[in-house]
Amino acid sequence: LVGRMREFGTTVFATMTKLAVDTGSINLGQGFPDTDGPARMLEHAVEAIRSGRNQYPPGPGVPELRQAVSGHRKDWYGLAYDADEVLVTVGATEAIASAVLAVCEPGDEVIVFEPYYDSYGAAIALAGAVRRPVTLRVDAGRFTFDPAELAAAVGPRTRAILVNSPHNPTGTVFTRQELETVADLCQERDLIAITDEVYEHLTYDGVEHVPLATLPGMRERTIMISSAGKSFSVTGWKTGWICAPPALVRAVQTVKQFLTFTSGAPWQLAVAYALREEMDWVAAQRAALEAKRDRLMTGLQAAGFEVLRPAGTYFVQTDIRPLGFDDGLEFAMRLPELAGVVAIPTQVFYDRPERGRHFVRFAFCKKDEVIDEAVTRLQRLG
Amino acid sequence: LVGRMREFGTTVFATMTKLAVDTGSINLGQGFPDTDGPARMLEHAVEAIRSGRNQYPPGPGVPELRQAVSGHRKDWYGLAYDADEVLVTVGATEAIASAVLAVCEPGDEVIVFEPYYDSYGAAIALAGAVRRPVTLRVDAGRFTFDPAELAAAVGPRTRAILVNSPHNPTGTVFTRQELETVADLCQERDLIAITDEVYEHLTYDGVEHVPLATLPGMRERTIMISSAGKSFSVTGWKTGWICAPPALVRAVQTVKQFLTFTSGAPWQLAVAYALREEMDWVAAQRAALEAKRDRLMTGLQAAGFEVLRPAGTYFVQTDIRPLGFDDGLEFAMRLPELAGVVAIPTQVFYDRPERGRHFVRFAFCKKDEVIDEAVTRLQRLG
Ligand SMILES: CSCCC(=O)C(=O)O
Ligand SMILES: CSCCC(=O)C(=O)O
Repeated sequence: LVGRMREFGTTVFATMTKLAVDTGSINLGQGFPDTDGPARMLEHAVEAIRSGRNQYPPGPGVPELRQAVSGHRKDWYGLAYDADEVLVTVGATEAIASAVLAVCEPGDEVIVFEPYYDSYGAAIALAGAVRRPVTLRVDAGRFTFDPAELAAAVGPRTRAILVNSPHNPTGTVFTRQELETVADLCQERDLIAITDEVYEHLTYDGVEHVPLATLPGMRERTIMISSAGKSFSVTGWKTGWICAPPALVRAVQTVKQFLTFTSGAPWQLAVAYALREEMDWVAAQRAALEAKRDRLMTGLQAAGFEVLRPAGTYFVQTDIRPLGFDDGLEFAMRLPELAGVVAIPTQVFYDRPERGRHFVRFAFCKKDEVIDEAVTRLQRLG
Repeated sequence: LVGRMREFGTTVFATMTKLAVDTGSINLGQGFPDTDGPARMLEHAVEAIRSGRNQYPPGPGVPELRQAVSGHRKDWYGLAYDADEVLVTVGATEAIASAVLAVCEPGDEVIVFEPYYDSYGAAIALAGAVRRPVTLRVDAGRFTFDPAELAAAVGPRTRAILVNSPHNPTGTVFTRQELETVADLCQERDLIAITDEVYEHLTYDGVEHVPLATLPGMRERTIMISSAGKSFSVTGWKTGWICAPPALVRAVQTVKQFLTFTSGAPWQLAVAYALREEMDWVAAQRAALEAKRDRLMTGLQAAGFEVLRPAGTYFVQTDIRPLGFDDGLEFAMRLPELAGVVAIPTQVFYDRPERGRHFVRFAFCKKDEVIDEAVTRLQRLG
């Protein structure tokens, strides 16, 4: 294995899901729902398979999906992206890797908000670039950043900032004011913003998701990323997309076409349909997830955790100290044996793990009875 | 776009397929069949979608497919790969990119046989590595290499050799003797072999495909790549795999998991079924393609091309000089207007395009009536 990848082992999600399977534990680790998306969307995929849409789709994606993404951006955010400014990818993961590889020269720096999704660090390393983490800290029950610390992280080699909102793994949804801080900095220091917005439709308590690209001056310097997996509960389809102005979308495509060339045509057609016709399903799913969040929070509190209320995503952060534990990694590795549950030790998403030492992440995108059984098992800890 | 990718524009396949669509030409450019694979395999994908297999599969692939690939390697080639030595990828393209990125440090050199599939050069560039092309030249109607030239291309920084057999775009299937030359060199100079064997089952005239990993001493240093797209006529499913010893498979997985994490679970289950149960279909398909090859060769000869007989793949190479043309790139760009047909100018696959200046590639993986109509149109050139 090459030097620059040596710090990366197996992704924590694969490790923890394997642990769940091997120990027969309830898997509240990796974020994937245990029920599928809209039935008519699935039938569109079936129809595509049966009607001979099984050969290479066009490299940038099938026109139907690029058009549907364009329409969705317009309807939801008033953002005008031409279908030619949309590129379909193998989920958001490929979009992020392609974007980072397309814009970062070796030695360039990329700002990330810590804790950060594990593929960010790997994509930056693959590009030979250097990450500059800015830590999200809990303030009034919510993870946020210090604008001065963010500004201080930008240097002469800073090329891009990776902005994930709604934020995994903390559940924070950046406010308009926070995003303005980011936008001002991008413009002052001439940075490209790469936004990971896969949880764009999964926000709670009336909190609104604001795409960074909607802020003045930002559309032209933003690579906006999302995917179907979370909105439509088909994480295994790996269908994502970027929206960006022509020069950026072309740059990302140049890389993307040589990572995977293209991806599943049947999914693309089914997701195009869903973006056009199943947004009501998404609204119902959002409401259902909000109730599941509350259900899991209540249960975790009863089991003795300190619980942080997420405004979005599939995940709740907990502090394990009230339970008499200190190290979240040790806790998570023992949790299958202690309680028959798998969770994610948040510290693995930090460059400075001690800053996330006490946090453990639980997923609530599961059937009510699965959440209830997990909570019952977790009572054993008390 | 970063410097190292600036020599790469849009992949020739996307460009030429778009040209075919825009001009209403018959597309004998990009290699994809116009009929689908075995019906029961498609129904396995349908069944997987309907029965709730739409969430993240395990990062390395679903156990059923890893097991089926393992069994296939054993049955066909006597190669013993444990299921843990199999990694599922988003087609061979992702397998190649991940393999190159996993083993090549910046400045390392990689041997490729020129003309080479376009993603090879891009993967090498993304790694910051340097390609060393060895030219395949026509000898007795077949593209082959000069062992002395190959040996001379290896230097102190050479890390790997990319071996594609059956070879796209030339149609050459390397003989056991040619592969022995490669194997000896790999062992003498301690090189890793990355083999692209996606056309493994599509060989003609009784020519046998020999995996490089079956040669003495090679299994331990080979990353063996194949995919379902060509064997089962589902190029749009993008389901591939690598087989390699544990240290290599882990290295490739470390990269692969951060390019796309994982890929379509329903395809994986359907392909697992096909590898176990549909090899007779593949045999029939091979025979059908051999007849199509002959059909297209005969037609191209009648239209005035000099035609080279391929022993494998979807493709025939032609020399356009007998038709009074000189430059294959110019010829291919004018072909839609001259004859309503799209083909691939072979020179784009060379670092030294003049070495492939006269060659144009035509695909024969098409319905008989499509081949016939293309041939009729090409008669206009005479
Ligand atoms: C790509 S696997 C990770 C799924 C996910 O987004 C998470 O669990 O955080
Ligand atoms: C990935 S598109 C290219 C298809 C193909 O293998 C070819 O036409 O050579």
